[in-house]
Amino acid sequence: MIAPDMATMLGFVFTDAKIPGSVLQKLLADAADKSLNCVTVDGDTSTSDTLLLAATGAARHAPIEESDDPVLVDFKRALDELLIDLAQLLARDGEGATKFVTINVGGASSNGAARKIGLAVANSPLVKTALHGGDPNWGRILAALGAAGVHLDPDRVSVAVGGVPIVAAGGGIDGSIARARQQLSKDEVEVEISLGLGDGSATVIASDLSPGYVQFNSASTT
Amino acid sequence: MIAPDMATMLGFVFTDAKIPGSVLQKLLADAADKSLNCVTVDGDTSTSDTLLLAATGAARHAPIEESDDPVLVDFKRALDELLIDLAQLLARDGEGATKFVTINVGGASSNGAARKIGLAVANSPLVKTALHGGDPNWGRILAALGAAGVHLDPDRVSVAVGGVPIVAAGGGIDGSIARARQQLSKDEVEVEISLGLGDGSATVIASDLSPGYVQFNSASTT
Repeated sequence: MIAPDMATMLGFVFTDAKIPGSVLQKLLADAADKSLNCVTVDGDTSTSDTLLLAATGAARHAPIEESDDPVLVDFKRALDELLIDLAQLLARDGEGATKFVTINVGGASSNGAARKIGLAVANSPLVKTALHGGDPNWGRILAALGAAGVHLDPDRVSVAVGGVPIVAAGGGIDGSIARARQQLSKDEVEVEISLGLGDGSATVIASDLSPGYVQFNSASTT
Repeated sequence: MIAPDMATMLGFVFTDAKIPGSVLQKLLADAADKSLNCVTVDGDTSTSDTLLLAATGAARHAPIEESDDPVLVDFKRALDELLIDLAQLLARDGEGATKFVTINVGGASSNGAARKIGLAVANSPLVKTALHGGDPNWGRILAALGAAGVHLDPDRVSVAVGGVPIVAAGGGIDGSIARARQQLSKDEVEVEISLGLGDGSATVIASDLSPGYVQFNSASTT
């Protein structure tokens, strides 16, 4: 049960910086959208999701009043990195997960569209089982893209796995499958999707779907 | 890969009635929304979905010009029954399916909302694995309802499995689990969800998620 938005996670982050609550909230929301709201194991959410960022104010520095204060650049980067680390830990610990999957979506009309595409691909049972089997089944990736409810130009879509291009201009690339299969045999898999439409991008963190997931979750809990 | 909307299905239905194309299209769309657009095995759609209704016009009868012609009442009922039969056959033949699941949603604000709720529950991997394990895990059903993106009043939600009430007024019913588990041990399972909000209803036809599904779909196809 992991698809934060938030889900099944109690996250508490502390800083000694002296940052007012309204600014912390904005920083946290921005960072969460790039990390914990981009991780999914099975698409199922829970009711107990929490991500909390608290500032003790113990540090001494000039007052910070706005989330776009230039002094926050490093803080934002550190917060992004920390939350992405947490998101990756969640996926690595996914129920029955045998592969850690990163889906980079680029060239979307917006960051939101890129995230929607990435999550649609990451949550497709057919993509997840293909990844489990190490099968570079690009047709399943394109079918998941096409059903994501986001505007696409199929002729501009390209896909690569582990750096091996398997789809260009919306169609399969001859002779690419054997090398792609080799990449997918690894424990860590990267899928690159480019839509060729704009500057929107997102990185979705996910896992495969294994028989172990089904066994774990079909055990009685009532 | 079965979640018609339409998906992975070529359906051809013929009648000897003499009904113009525009009327046939309306009849077919109405009947498909209650049947083939309400079946899901894994939520994944394909690009080759087709449902076609053709009238040979061989039969002799008075002209039919409108889809609400009273003479069509029996025809509509027969078409509904036929398409629901086809939808059920799809779910029974689902990849790795070990249980045939019917989810009846009632008391929704509209039929569309009821269908959205039913599909959200039917596509939740956690609900599907619980059904596979015969586990009356009503918390997973409520979590899937809550994440469906449809307005709900949790205090009005009730759920029954195989006729055994397990949730009333949004909470679990003490002492109901053993009897519910007995119902879920069967090959055919019925889940009743009542939202207490309006007259909208839908019946969604589905299957469980088994290790067999994962094994089938992680076998290489490229």
